[in-house]
Amino acid sequence: MKKSLCGRGILAPIRKPDRDKNVAPTILEQADILAKITDEPGIICRTFRSPAMKRANAQVAQWMREAGLTVREDPAGNLIGRLASKNPRAKTFILGSHLDTVRDAGKYDGILGVLTAIEVAGQLRDLPFNLEIYGFADEEGVRFATTYLGSGAVTGSLTKRNLNRKDAAGIALGQLIGDLSACRRNPRDLLGYAEVHIEQGPVLDQRRLAVGVVKAIAGQTRTRITFTGQAGHAGTTPMKMRRDALCAAAEFVLAVEKVGVLATVGTLEIRNSAGNVIPGHVTCSVDIRHENDAMRQRAVATLRRWKPRAGIKMVWENKSEVSAVACDGGLVKAMTQAARKHQRIVPLLVSGAGHDAAAMAAITPVVMLFVRCKDGISHNSAESVKPGDVAKAAAILQAFLLSVSEA
Amino acid sequence: MKKSLCGRGILAPIRKPDRDKNVAPTILEQADILAKITDEPGIICRTFRSPAMKRANAQVAQWMREAGLTVREDPAGNLIGRLASKNPRAKTFILGSHLDTVRDAGKYDGILGVLTAIEVAGQLRDLPFNLEIYGFADEEGVRFATTYLGSGAVTGSLTKRNLNRKDAAGIALGQLIGDLSACRRNPRDLLGYAEVHIEQGPVLDQRRLAVGVVKAIAGQTRTRITFTGQAGHAGTTPMKMRRDALCAAAEFVLAVEKVGVLATVGTLEIRNSAGNVIPGHVTCSVDIRHENDAMRQRAVATLRRWKPRAGIKMVWENKSEVSAVACDGGLVKAMTQAARKHQRIVPLLVSGAGHDAAAMAAITPVVMLFVRCKDGISHNSAESVKPGDVAKAAAILQAFLLSVSEA
Repeated sequence: MKKSLCGRGILAPIRKPDRDKNVAPTILEQADILAKITDEPGIICRTFRSPAMKRANAQVAQWMREAGLTVREDPAGNLIGRLASKNPRAKTFILGSHLDTVRDAGKYDGILGVLTAIEVAGQLRDLPFNLEIYGFADEEGVRFATTYLGSGAVTGSLTKRNLNRKDAAGIALGQLIGDLSACRRNPRDLLGYAEVHIEQGPVLDQRRLAVGVVKAIAGQTRTRITFTGQAGHAGTTPMKMRRDALCAAAEFVLAVEKVGVLATVGTLEIRNSAGNVIPGHVTCSVDIRHENDAMRQRAVATLRRWKPRAGIKMVWENKSEVSAVACDGGLVKAMTQAARKHQRIVPLLVSGAGHDAAAMAAITPVVMLFVRCKDGISHNSAESVKPGDVAKAAAILQAFLLSVSEA
Repeated sequence: MKKSLCGRGILAPIRKPDRDKNVAPTILEQADILAKITDEPGIICRTFRSPAMKRANAQVAQWMREAGLTVREDPAGNLIGRLASKNPRAKTFILGSHLDTVRDAGKYDGILGVLTAIEVAGQLRDLPFNLEIYGFADEEGVRFATTYLGSGAVTGSLTKRNLNRKDAAGIALGQLIGDLSACRRNPRDLLGYAEVHIEQGPVLDQRRLAVGVVKAIAGQTRTRITFTGQAGHAGTTPMKMRRDALCAAAEFVLAVEKVGVLATVGTLEIRNSAGNVIPGHVTCSVDIRHENDAMRQRAVATLRRWKPRAGIKMVWENKSEVSAVACDGGLVKAMTQAARKHQRIVPLLVSGAGHDAAAMAAITPVVMLFVRCKDGISHNSAESVKPGDVAKAAAILQAFLLSVSEA
């Protein structure tokens, strides 16, 4: 195995499909190899179209070929491996996730989904549909401050209008992307999309479960709130005469916590703060998420109606809003049934983080399988998965694909 | 008047004492002139032993001479004007405040007390005690990050050990100060110390009163508190699983506000904050002040006993502690009686800010007269006083000195 992983330039031997093989050791070994393909030595960092991304695509392409897939790259840099059906009229089922990373990333975010899909594809032949595996070129959006750059090219949400966007070096996105229409996929050709991904949260770890099925990807409202009171001398202004913007913000932080949906004040800044000055001006962020858009909007409305204490002016600014994406009922059921063969209780989870599946839902039914990660830690070199969990995820993905075949 | 103010180099004519003269216009005109003597054009800034401080001392010395005082400067740069008694055994009563400023200061902080004292001294003769007026060389401590540098030299709290302290340019304090023993005053020679000062707070302005008498200068505890929880993804960590350090800090901010004494959280910082990250680490300051040290310490103890929510570790660090200073009962009574002639209600105030009087209390009985400032604003170019209030303060200081003479 080791030899074939590293032996570049020579034609890789295609492995014999073996449905019962434990593919977890291969996946973890490949993840270790990918972790060393980085734009910044010492940490993991691969951004859209960077030198490391090109090397990573070349490496993963080799593994795809070894698994018996034919490989191409689309004009947006998405890497695509294909296991064609014998039926020339067959539609296509897509597996995938992303191969780019945040700066100082872990080994598994995105990567795990692509590698698991490849190894599972290597175990299968003669499916009644074409199976394609996408290694998306950019989900994290580090280089162009975008999201779903790779999958957006596939769904058509990335348009010519976006191509003027420039990176820190002044290079336009359009200089790095070829014919967008050649990236796009026709919904009528597709059966669905499934993505394996680490949970990036603590729920599975706390419940001591290897996997969970995602029923929805939460919508999100991001806001910026400003509290304006009156700065003053901490030693000379009586408590009753104060208009302390921080005290008002503190009450708001606790109101946000109690609003009933996932809601977070992540930033809070006092203007010109000093130990002996009463805060006169405070800004904070609020991040509100829910699988149900109406519930999220109700929480936003509740917080917008929240009244600060007397003497404090509160200004609410919506920064961004993303709708929730529901996973496909049929695919969720199929994935859950496949998972039940390996785990007695299969929780249905809501993903609070965004994923390529959320983009792909625009053109085809989607489902996701979450894999436990240690302490819920992600976007961090401490990202960690258990080999047994990876083995389960691969087996479940295989069983899922076979059940889709039979449907 | 204008001519004598500006005519440098010629021997200033000594004015004829006139107890009924309104000295406010002179004081305000002098404050305007001093405001132009600055180390940074465009703003008011005079720091210890700076070129502007030397020019300010020369200008004020001239006004002292015109008021009939003999002038000297001590080795710490304190400017001293003296109206000697005819009785060679007479003790000395000191008036004063400071001539240095914060950076981008107002016109009256410190200055008003020195100028009022000089003009009042110019109205008096033949007192049964020596009257001395100190223009302290440094109260704000901008250059050496000290407090009471000028008055500390007079009381002896500034010692040789402090002289190694360096300014931003690497100049040691010791290079700028001569024989410290020549600065020190013997408590047995002194009768007391009185200081006129703008309130630097909003109480008089809100109560529509020109002046108030200070009964104490508050003691102060400064602390730094750290809350440690667990950072996490705002989209993937359920509310019940969070250990949000900001929510814990928000509860603390509100507990500080309700602790029953003057208490302020002036700074609050989230480590590595981002809109989509649950705050895992928050530091904040608490500034606690009270005229009664036991009350202040009780409030500190209450806050130290405060328990953060489960999952959050709170670490309390005392940064500094300064004891309260009580003004002298007899002098407070004398100043209050003098003030009653000009204002029906004379409030007894606690100064939350520190003043030279707090240092001088170590060697002699002290009292302060606070003058209303617009909106309580100080340490700011918007610092403003009313001419009528200044006239009252001067008249009250005169009456106070006469009543001390009679006692």
